[in-house]
Amino acid sequence: MAFQRIVQVLMAGVALSTSALYAEPVEQSKSALVMIEYQNEWVSEEGNLRNLLVEDEERFKSAIHSSKSLLAAARKQGIATIHVTLKPDTHYRIFGDAAFGLRAAIPAANTWQDDMQAIHADFAPLPNEHVITERTGASGFAGSNLDSFLRNNGIDTLFLAGFATHVCVESTLREAHDRGYRTFVVTDATAAFTAAQQIYFENEVLHHFGRGISAKQFGEVFE
Amino acid sequence: MAFQRIVQVLMAGVALSTSALYAEPVEQSKSALVMIEYQNEWVSEEGNLRNLLVEDEERFKSAIHSSKSLLAAARKQGIATIHVTLKPDTHYRIFGDAAFGLRAAIPAANTWQDDMQAIHADFAPLPNEHVITERTGASGFAGSNLDSFLRNNGIDTLFLAGFATHVCVESTLREAHDRGYRTFVVTDATAAFTAAQQIYFENEVLHHFGRGISAKQFGEVFE
Amino acid sequence: MAFQRIVQVLMAGVALSTSALYAEPVEQSKSALVMIEYQNEWVSEEGNLRNLLVEDEERFKSAIHSSKSLLAAARKQGIATIHVTLKPDTHYRIFGDAAFGLRAAIPAANTWQDDMQAIHADFAPLPNEHVITERTGASGFAGSNLDSFLRNNGIDTLFLAGFATHVCVESTLREAHDRGYRTFVVTDATAAFTAAQQIYFENEVLHHFGRGISAKQFGEVFE
Amino acid sequence: MAFQRIVQVLMAGVALSTSALYAEPVEQSKSALVMIEYQNEWVSEEGNLRNLLVEDEERFKSAIHSSKSLLAAARKQGIATIHVTLKPDTHYRIFGDAAFGLRAAIPAANTWQDDMQAIHADFAPLPNEHVITERTGASGFAGSNLDSFLRNNGIDTLFLAGFATHVCVESTLREAHDRGYRTFVVTDATAAFTAAQQIYFENEVLHHFGRGISAKQFGEVFE
Repeated sequence: MAFQRIVQVLMAGVALSTSALYAEPVEQSKSALVMIEYQNEWVSEEGNLRNLLVEDEERFKSAIHSSKSLLAAARKQGIATIHVTLKPDTHYRIFGDAAFGLRAAIPAANTWQDDMQAIHADFAPLPNEHVITERTGASGFAGSNLDSFLRNNGIDTLFLAGFATHVCVESTLREAHDRGYRTFVVTDATAAFTAAQQIYFENEVLHHFGRGISAKQFGEVFE
Repeated sequence: MAFQRIVQVLMAGVALSTSALYAEPVEQSKSALVMIEYQNEWVSEEGNLRNLLVEDEERFKSAIHSSKSLLAAARKQGIATIHVTLKPDTHYRIFGDAAFGLRAAIPAANTWQDDMQAIHADFAPLPNEHVITERTGASGFAGSNLDSFLRNNGIDTLFLAGFATHVCVESTLREAHDRGYRTFVVTDATAAFTAAQQIYFENEVLHHFGRGISAKQFGEVFE
Repeated sequence: MAFQRIVQVLMAGVALSTSALYAEPVEQSKSALVMIEYQNEWVSEEGNLRNLLVEDEERFKSAIHSSKSLLAAARKQGIATIHVTLKPDTHYRIFGDAAFGLRAAIPAANTWQDDMQAIHADFAPLPNEHVITERTGASGFAGSNLDSFLRNNGIDTLFLAGFATHVCVESTLREAHDRGYRTFVVTDATAAFTAAQQIYFENEVLHHFGRGISAKQFGEVFE
Repeated sequence: MAFQRIVQVLMAGVALSTSALYAEPVEQSKSALVMIEYQNEWVSEEGNLRNLLVEDEERFKSAIHSSKSLLAAARKQGIATIHVTLKPDTHYRIFGDAAFGLRAAIPAANTWQDDMQAIHADFAPLPNEHVITERTGASGFAGSNLDSFLRNNGIDTLFLAGFATHVCVESTLREAHDRGYRTFVVTDATAAFTAAQQIYFENEVLHHFGRGISAKQFGEVFE
């Protein structure tokens, strides 16, 4: 019956077992790991945003730890790795004269400048990895060549990791869905500001647009 | 100090007073009301999705009621009104062979077909109002001419209403932010599935991408 | 040597032999025929634009003839077929208040209205073919779900046909290139206003963004 | 009568007089000069592409000369200036494994690398000017934040200059039209490979998507 079926499908992401995940073919050459904002604002212990906004510091540290394993696994298995950064110009001209939202808040707070912009040394891109620096919004696709890179290289399956879960990671997930990608979020390699936000994302949002996977599961998908 | 300032700005949307709203000029000719999915799936009491997914039925009814006032106010004041629908073809070819997310769940549930696709009579578009039927994702911008219509007509300020708050309304809000629009969500003219989802959206999400306003406030902005 | 190589590659499209074409795998399930503006404005002998703008009427008739064979071949071989139309609203609100270019010229000329909007009977879509009606610019991608449909269905190779060669067909070709598609133009199933325009397109433009193929060659690609 | 009107409108760009141009308000704060590919590949006398492809060298030199005046005029009058470059990575991964078109030709010719990528000293951006480096196609909008920058800064009128007229300048013009911009091409600050290509562009293409203006006229628009 239709009603039961929609519940089943809508809820599939929540309770996804490893075996269900593997039942669908995930091709290595069509997959990419998308690392979102592993910059000093979040990853450095001196990061402005980290110190200001992150309340669940333990979860945040754990996500950074899992992200290292995740990146290592992707490199070991030859999965295309993309580093999505946010690097506004000194005067935030790229955001214009925004009235509200992130485009207003970021200039007002004077964040994402100077060495806070740098990708943290633990996540430094290798020469053959694609780095995006001219992005203009919360979504990794905003004003960037993320979509071009993926399409031109035949990639249709994404694995998202990074910060913050309910802001930029979620905006990227939502847009990836609408652009036709099959998207996994590596949930333990993401972190929100609070535990409640992370739980909400995983339980109420994720299954509408993609599926969750752990860093450990990622390492097993392509073996 | 920067830390205090970012908190102030990030939180501005939550506690926005009417006076603060009016402090910013909102031009009638540059504004549009975007009505999202006032179709029978949600608005009819026989709607599949409404009956299946909506738990907070009282809030849902209230949102429909407020939406009628909102639409009447927009028409009275000559604000451009846009009706964003979802009308997949019989075989959901537009969604392709999706593995998960809404593009998979909707065909699996066989929703958004036949008379469930129709805009409810209470919200029927007038001949001079723009109607979008070929959209392909959660965001109102996905595969649609929403952005073209807005840009070609010099509109930079949006007022969003409709269903469901945390799915399609939120995806539209997020993409509108990244596309450079100034976006208000008419919160009492939106509804989620549960009260908790609506509260989460208003408190944890909205201020990152836009601001909240009530249907009553909307009626006063342009007077 | 690099200089010789670039000339070779840049010119490849011009002198492409059938054998060279077949040397590259073209998969049926990843290909689509995109029929651009087979509406009465162009295809009917009473079409306003046809009577006003087309000087090389013989070539135009020949292109219509070839297009029929092309469409029949695509249907016989099960290639996804997409019909891209232009159907502005009565008051051309979708184009806004444009100062110049097609968005200004079309409303000024009062074209693309009433029965001139209809797809000509000889090219009527079958129920299982995708039809685009909400497009907003010269390119078939402008404000349309063309890209969504193609991506969601795993299509990466396009065959373009229709009118006019140097306006809407060329804009679609250029954007398809930039969006990562491999694009063939079925040259004898396209027509410009003059013979000189068609020749210029085939010799000076096409190879920068795609390749030419004849309707007869198309019929042989997938056999 | 409609037929006469469409001819009049379609042809307007060709014979545009200065007075007609000035009859339309062009606001300084809503305008931008878009400088396309003033990189060594074209501007240096040792440029690979210039030496390989440019046959009408006299016209090319003249366009470079006019471009200097144009840039000086824009800076004097405070018009936002944007520098659009093409800077593929060493292995052209951004273009993927393209079969044909520019995405195939550029890697095959090994162009747009090393010091050929640099903006020529005569056109070096000032610190307050926006520079685009992550573009991925012929159009200046492809994979870039050009659209974001323009929208976020309230710019709706573009003045295009650069190289080559019928390839990247024309693709940018066409996409700008479809994205709702009012676009002028500063024709004497552009150059094609041959005189015939430049003439064809100015006479047969430009008026469909924008209007022509000279560098001298540009200097007078905002006075």
